[in-house]
Amino acid sequence: MYFSKSDIENAERVYRLNMMNSVSGIKPGNLIGTKSAEGVSNLAIFSSIVHLGSNPGYLGFIIRPDAEVRRHTYENIKANGCFTVNHIHRNFIEKAHWTSAKFEADVSEFDVCGLTEEYHADFVAPFVKESTLKMGFKHVESVPIQSTNTIMVIGEIRHLIVPDDAIDKRGYIDLSSFNDVGISGLNCYYELKKITEFPYARPHKVPDFKV
Amino acid sequence: MYFSKSDIENAERVYRLNMMNSVSGIKPGNLIGTKSAEGVSNLAIFSSIVHLGSNPGYLGFIIRPDAEVRRHTYENIKANGCFTVNHIHRNFIEKAHWTSAKFEADVSEFDVCGLTEEYHADFVAPFVKESTLKMGFKHVESVPIQSTNTIMVIGEIRHLIVPDDAIDKRGYIDLSSFNDVGISGLNCYYELKKITEFPYARPHKVPDFKV
Repeated sequence: MYFSKSDIENAERVYRLNMMNSVSGIKPGNLIGTKSAEGVSNLAIFSSIVHLGSNPGYLGFIIRPDAEVRRHTYENIKANGCFTVNHIHRNFIEKAHWTSAKFEADVSEFDVCGLTEEYHADFVAPFVKESTLKMGFKHVESVPIQSTNTIMVIGEIRHLIVPDDAIDKRGYIDLSSFNDVGISGLNCYYELKKITEFPYARPHKVPDFKV
Repeated sequence: MYFSKSDIENAERVYRLNMMNSVSGIKPGNLIGTKSAEGVSNLAIFSSIVHLGSNPGYLGFIIRPDAEVRRHTYENIKANGCFTVNHIHRNFIEKAHWTSAKFEADVSEFDVCGLTEEYHADFVAPFVKESTLKMGFKHVESVPIQSTNTIMVIGEIRHLIVPDDAIDKRGYIDLSSFNDVGISGLNCYYELKKITEFPYARPHKVPDFKV
């Protein structure tokens, strides 16, 4: 099935939204936890988290300044400079999904969606107790993206909690071992199953594919 | 298992690289196709593709200016302003993986990795024939990210090819139906299986999770 740019522009709005949110492939399922200046905790689902650096560890995610839910997240990050990223697992997908509803600013998604706040040391932003892979980040940069009227929010890692038996001696983390999920589009959830791995690719080691 | 910022900084380099590339969760598996000013086609695996907009459709991905392979991709995009994004499917994971080796600029990864170039209309960048979900993008913006010395390269969609039976009447695309894969870390590949979907989240429809 082929779509030109104008086919996409002329598609029905919700159809286009669903389709365009699916075409990038599988997306990570994470909950971002923050705390407002007034002390209200906030939790929001994000599928746009992307790896940016490894020493010590940077992630970015995309905010739409005109979307209400994500605005709470960003306002809180600007208020106290920190946020948590908590992986979504299979046993609480539905709760995680409902954090995307546009609740009022004085409502904590932890309460209405039945998830549990957890704190580490003096880190202000709340972690999700139900999540077994979670991280605390210090906000270091916000990069405006003009063409799409979005902002990439960037954090540097401060805390990392990983399930003991999920990380091997090489530092590899098996996402299927703790039932991590992926997201497609706006509301479809996928199970992950590790199937294979290959060595670091050096040119002189390439198998002979030319046959 | 807990890691502080300094635990991460003091970890062995490869361990840290593997771990930090895994903590964002599952990543989409895509091949980016480009053509150099000299007419050499290039193909490189990227796991950093992120959805940025739906009307008509914007994607971004992360380039490290100091990484040789990805530099070819970016040089080619600057040369002729376009690129393709091709989903990786289960039947050619190994070929896709080896495109990450640092080949010389006059080598086409299509040739050495055994994948087939395909062209649509007058679009300069090569598509991957073996991929059944693929897109052509016009380069519209490059956003420098100072904290991580990376660049987000942004494209606007021009062509979209989707397997007929993978897209439903609502515009949802079932990634498992055409054996799409996800990536974790630098070299681990995951099978995807759609398990559930939930309706658009409106606050007054939230199930009672408080029990």
